[in-house]
Amino acid sequence: MSRLDFPEEVNVLIAHLKRLPGVGPKSAERIAVWLLDQDGEFSGDLAVAVRGAAEKVQTCARCGFFESASLGCALCGDEARDRAVICVVEQPTDVLPLERTGVFRGSYHCLGGRIAPLENIGPDDLLIDVLMERLSGGEVNELILGVASDVEGEATANYLAELLAVSYPEVVVTRLAQGLPAGGGLQNADELTLYRALDGRRKM
Amino acid sequence: MSRLDFPEEVNVLIAHLKRLPGVGPKSAERIAVWLLDQDGEFSGDLAVAVRGAAEKVQTCARCGFFESASLGCALCGDEARDRAVICVVEQPTDVLPLERTGVFRGSYHCLGGRIAPLENIGPDDLLIDVLMERLSGGEVNELILGVASDVEGEATANYLAELLAVSYPEVVVTRLAQGLPAGGGLQNADELTLYRALDGRRKM
Repeated sequence: MSRLDFPEEVNVLIAHLKRLPGVGPKSAERIAVWLLDQDGEFSGDLAVAVRGAAEKVQTCARCGFFESASLGCALCGDEARDRAVICVVEQPTDVLPLERTGVFRGSYHCLGGRIAPLENIGPDDLLIDVLMERLSGGEVNELILGVASDVEGEATANYLAELLAVSYPEVVVTRLAQGLPAGGGLQNADELTLYRALDGRRKM
Repeated sequence: MSRLDFPEEVNVLIAHLKRLPGVGPKSAERIAVWLLDQDGEFSGDLAVAVRGAAEKVQTCARCGFFESASLGCALCGDEARDRAVICVVEQPTDVLPLERTGVFRGSYHCLGGRIAPLENIGPDDLLIDVLMERLSGGEVNELILGVASDVEGEATANYLAELLAVSYPEVVVTRLAQGLPAGGGLQNADELTLYRALDGRRKM
């Protein structure tokens, strides 16, 4: 009895799916089975979508948001944005949630990640040089650090704050508030969240 | 200020990724960002892999395993397999883990799912007719139900057992043992697992 295996094409598909972030070996198998269960149309559409995005979308060299090959960067092209305030985020996908709040009218800068020594990501791997260049024009007066409130986000925020204090001391550097999330009770909050909520308490 | 959105190609990619099983809106965004961060080569390879598998692999009409367009079904083509014993599993991906145990030399039958009324999957959506046809030859004497030990697996096993008792009473129907998983202590086992472990206890 020969050793049983999937057809080569299935193994190749699983190997590729496994490389996607958050997709482990089991999920990759599950997705592959599901894809093969669909009519060929969805697989064709998915293949076209993957290739189309890779070919027609790139990172804006100025602000790090997605840039469409035909339409350019929707952020940099928007003349109505307040250029005096820049909100620095980790990923382009962090921009839309902030936009949905409806209260921020300024510009954005997407770093393309965060400082994470364990993953070998240092300041040079992020769009920090470009951010400094944006500040050199002198029209920016506030920089909001919209990074995550975890260890890597903390490291990134501290690094940027120090860099800015030296290079652009006139720019006010702020950070998003940390505390209890909306709808979150005290019994569900971890110690660090409560510590920060206490630390950042505001007079009513 | 116009409403900010991702380039169209990114939205199309995210919409397609979201449809994959186990991939929610957040994971889809994360995968899309990751894909756009890679060099174009990986996206191209992934697109080719998705399309290649969809075009060159199908479900074997006889046993439900993956069938390669060029090489046929590796299970049905293997003359050395014992045709008197069939292990019925839910998905083609359940076959390889069983093969790795090295103790089973029989044939397989992949149902293509399990009976799940909440997901609108009934017996007619599974390869049950074909299984009955395989039994009609009279050479099968044991059918092992290798379905999951959850509610849907239970329903599928019961349905098949009743159907077989009526149509092929001479075929012995067995089910994979249920009990403590290897390495699992009693303190980690849930009530139902312990109940089944007690119920299925074996004399040493």
